[in-house]
Amino acid sequence: MTETDSRTRMVRSAATLISTRGVNATSFSEVLADSGAPRGSIYHHFPDGKAQLAEDAVRWTSGRVLGHQRAYAGTSARGVLERFIDMWRQVVRASQGATGCVVAGVAVDTAPESPDALLMGVVRETFRAWIATLADQLAERGIEAARARALATMTLAGMEGALILCRAEGDVQPLETVAAELLSLLPPGS
Amino acid sequence: MTETDSRTRMVRSAATLISTRGVNATSFSEVLADSGAPRGSIYHHFPDGKAQLAEDAVRWTSGRVLGHQRAYAGTSARGVLERFIDMWRQVVRASQGATGCVVAGVAVDTAPESPDALLMGVVRETFRAWIATLADQLAERGIEAARARALATMTLAGMEGALILCRAEGDVQPLETVAAELLSLLPPGS
Repeated sequence: MTETDSRTRMVRSAATLISTRGVNATSFSEVLADSGAPRGSIYHHFPDGKAQLAEDAVRWTSGRVLGHQRAYAGTSARGVLERFIDMWRQVVRASQGATGCVVAGVAVDTAPESPDALLMGVVRETFRAWIATLADQLAERGIEAARARALATMTLAGMEGALILCRAEGDVQPLETVAAELLSLLPPGS
Repeated sequence: MTETDSRTRMVRSAATLISTRGVNATSFSEVLADSGAPRGSIYHHFPDGKAQLAEDAVRWTSGRVLGHQRAYAGTSARGVLERFIDMWRQVVRASQGATGCVVAGVAVDTAPESPDALLMGVVRETFRAWIATLADQLAERGIEAARARALATMTLAGMEGALILCRAEGDVQPLETVAAELLSLLPPGS
């Protein structure tokens, strides 16, 4: 395993573990076991400790979501919302609800003040980037800018909340209910 | 401090701590420090350990929310939704977003499978009770039953998600955006 490999695999493993149990219950030992990275990788790649690993897991997740969002070219406003929702649906379906959002898992477990303020800053940047991308895409498809921004915020809040309800139910039904309500908020003919 | 007092105070402290940092970062030591209960209280009141304390914190929160909901008599459907939303708004405002939902804090940190299955069951019961109460109240005010249920699920998901976004932003604005969208989902004249 190359150095880059072991780092990337640790970050991916951390993201998976955080999304199923929160950040505090995710230990370096489990990340090593899950990723197969050698023990020395911890100090080599994450000299600042677990907050650094959590930060990287949030950034990695952020990049994946933004990559998914960038592939929505050629769809209508409704299509943009449907594809964004479908990304979350697949996460819930693949795990019968057991997997939540990595970023929410960090947000819930992290104090907004020091020493976690930096990590919470990365969480904030991530949510803002997802909302801004969604809002821009809706606005480019003819939805008025302020309306697009409100819809984007509502959609992210709805998905984050739905994932928590799906986790409790072990089922995708809450997400489907939320999805139908979100789509009904679009202007007719979008 | 009587026995009942020390138990109740520990449960309240646990609820407060879980809502700001999740369940895994909430230790018995901190609960004792915050509640002023004597150390022996842990083994006396919570022989099954921290999961039992977390379970009681969820049940205590559930009872408080249901109590708040029961006080919505004499309001319109819109009034019911506004008062439910306002309960969450006050939590965010009082803490500049730092306080989240105790039940979500447990849901995100708890594995749906054994040994946490019992605790997740209490989380599930709680979400179901809040949604059922809200749905019944909307239906009693003339909203068709299936519609009332969907609106209730959407509202709880929206509030849970909004609290996560408010936590990241340290501000109530995401909740206000979500609140306006939720109220727009009510049938005209509700």
